[in-house]
Amino acid sequence: MSDNILRKVIKEIEEYKPGKNPETKDVIKLASNENPFGPSPKALKAIEEEANNLQIYPNQKATRLRQALAKKFDVNQNQIIAGNGSDDIMQIIAATFLCPQEEVIFPEKTFSVYNLVAKIFEGKIAASALKENEISLKNIASAITDKTKIIFIANPNNPTGTIFTQNEFDDFLKMVPKKTLVVIDEAYAEFVESQDYPDTIKHVRDGKKNLIILRTFSKFYGLAGLRVGYGIASEELIAPMMKVKMPFNVSRLAQAGAAAALDDLLFLEKTYQNNVAGKKFLYESLDKLGLSYKKTESNFIFVDVKQNADALFLKLIGQKIIIRPLTSFGFSEAIRVSIGNAEQNKKLISAMRKVLG
Amino acid sequence: MSDNILRKVIKEIEEYKPGKNPETKDVIKLASNENPFGPSPKALKAIEEEANNLQIYPNQKATRLRQALAKKFDVNQNQIIAGNGSDDIMQIIAATFLCPQEEVIFPEKTFSVYNLVAKIFEGKIAASALKENEISLKNIASAITDKTKIIFIANPNNPTGTIFTQNEFDDFLKMVPKKTLVVIDEAYAEFVESQDYPDTIKHVRDGKKNLIILRTFSKFYGLAGLRVGYGIASEELIAPMMKVKMPFNVSRLAQAGAAAALDDLLFLEKTYQNNVAGKKFLYESLDKLGLSYKKTESNFIFVDVKQNADALFLKLIGQKIIIRPLTSFGFSEAIRVSIGNAEQNKKLISAMRKVLG
Repeated sequence: MSDNILRKVIKEIEEYKPGKNPETKDVIKLASNENPFGPSPKALKAIEEEANNLQIYPNQKATRLRQALAKKFDVNQNQIIAGNGSDDIMQIIAATFLCPQEEVIFPEKTFSVYNLVAKIFEGKIAASALKENEISLKNIASAITDKTKIIFIANPNNPTGTIFTQNEFDDFLKMVPKKTLVVIDEAYAEFVESQDYPDTIKHVRDGKKNLIILRTFSKFYGLAGLRVGYGIASEELIAPMMKVKMPFNVSRLAQAGAAAALDDLLFLEKTYQNNVAGKKFLYESLDKLGLSYKKTESNFIFVDVKQNADALFLKLIGQKIIIRPLTSFGFSEAIRVSIGNAEQNKKLISAMRKVLG
Repeated sequence: MSDNILRKVIKEIEEYKPGKNPETKDVIKLASNENPFGPSPKALKAIEEEANNLQIYPNQKATRLRQALAKKFDVNQNQIIAGNGSDDIMQIIAATFLCPQEEVIFPEKTFSVYNLVAKIFEGKIAASALKENEISLKNIASAITDKTKIIFIANPNNPTGTIFTQNEFDDFLKMVPKKTLVVIDEAYAEFVESQDYPDTIKHVRDGKKNLIILRTFSKFYGLAGLRVGYGIASEELIAPMMKVKMPFNVSRLAQAGAAAALDDLLFLEKTYQNNVAGKKFLYESLDKLGLSYKKTESNFIFVDVKQNADALFLKLIGQKIIIRPLTSFGFSEAIRVSIGNAEQNKKLISAMRKVLG
């Protein structure tokens, strides 16, 4: 019965495959790029205080949080929208701008929610080819047609952790027609070490009207469970998105916790330094194991395991380590490992040594 | 520029008008039907504990919460979906089932999010006429055509607080074609005193395949700021909705807090009894003021003030009381007052006495 009343496009949607959560305390999860130090302590304190007001509806416009973000990024608060995770903002973007049959471009083998929101709004999906498993802005640019409405690109890319540079991005942006929206998903921006990482927000400051930058509190700030993401774009784009979003999309605890996390400088510095050190340790260890991997600008590493990733995933579960096999992304012989704390990284390598035998 | 890339339907959407939030502590808000006793204490305790896991993504399926709800309502957990407030579920329903140009029926002058989600998915909106300012299921039934996909009805109705009965509902349901979805928004169900209030969920238990019941933790459980709502329907309807929802739509704190609130029997009993007593006091006081009002089955009262509601709202602000003028609902001379605690109700009446002069 329900098949008759279901929208046709919905039948093509597959359920999202999340990283597996541990069932016991002794299992280490390095599958979802979560912060090994837990949530920001300043966020926790703000959440505890704000909880006493939970009977009251949230501020519909997330005013305090947007003001804090505006200050941080030197933009106007009307150039910012907050969401129930950046997934929510991706959906709001499609709801606001995507008409049925308009084209949505994103690189193949990437974060699956771009595909989900494009399907929901009946976009025509064009997956652009990778080049050596990395995003090719040239391939994306050459896929643009006069029907292209939205381009979603993650930078750093998920699941490879690689980036495109400022020059590459600036050149690319010039090739995009004004009526095509470029959405850059910078979920992992705070982990980047490279000096070539693009400052995309300067284009918003400079008046660029078809660019949206997405950021999140899920990774660097340790707040994946709280659900807060945000978008930065011209007021012309943000204003209609504010009308389309569900009125109370960001909870009181999310608004208060996220605003507080922005100021948690000690926690953020510890998170950054741990990632730099963990990356170095994992590179050296993977080299010793004879595994090739992508140099990462993120808090995870893409490892080419040259064997069935799902089978390796199960073997590592046997060692009480959860990693992410990239089969659902379209890489059947690669895994993504989150960079943990020093102890977790050591246990990961020792488990891999065992199961790779 | 942005006008060119905006979807046409989006231009017709107006921003949601929330109840005003107090700016100082001495202001009493009786505008958004929030719980005067604050959030459920058991929810607060669960939230405090769960906050320590905030670096981890939420359970994608809200399993524990759905299990608890399934037990409470004697349904299967696969007959339940949880959302970021019931707004989120309304949007998921439209995303899953509503094709462009299919008709969406809801009574005129009601909760505005039905209109919002119908617009986003390009439904053709048919507002059915009220009868003496109350919902007429007969008018709704006679508005059904072979293009009708979704019917949204609030029961108790917002903003009148009135209900339709079990017999009326059962008769109505028989008249609805199988391919038309009936969504009953029972946001205020827990406050109902009438014995005639419909048990809608029994129809789901009995295998009805085109009925969705919405409930929320925002009102009775005092968790409006947390954002948790849920839908109850046949597995055939819930399964595709689970694929369409954003993967992590319900935060860890929302899942944990809501599950704990369900068991907070003392708090819930206090909330219920306060509402019964407050209702009685307000009826008597409004009678003395010579104001007519609707008998309510909810935690708010619709009052016919026979003068400009926006002007009265401002006068009451002057008395440090925030109520909801119903102008944005389409009633220019009516207000909605939430039932507060005994002290708040007294202050409301004394302020009204002053400004009505």
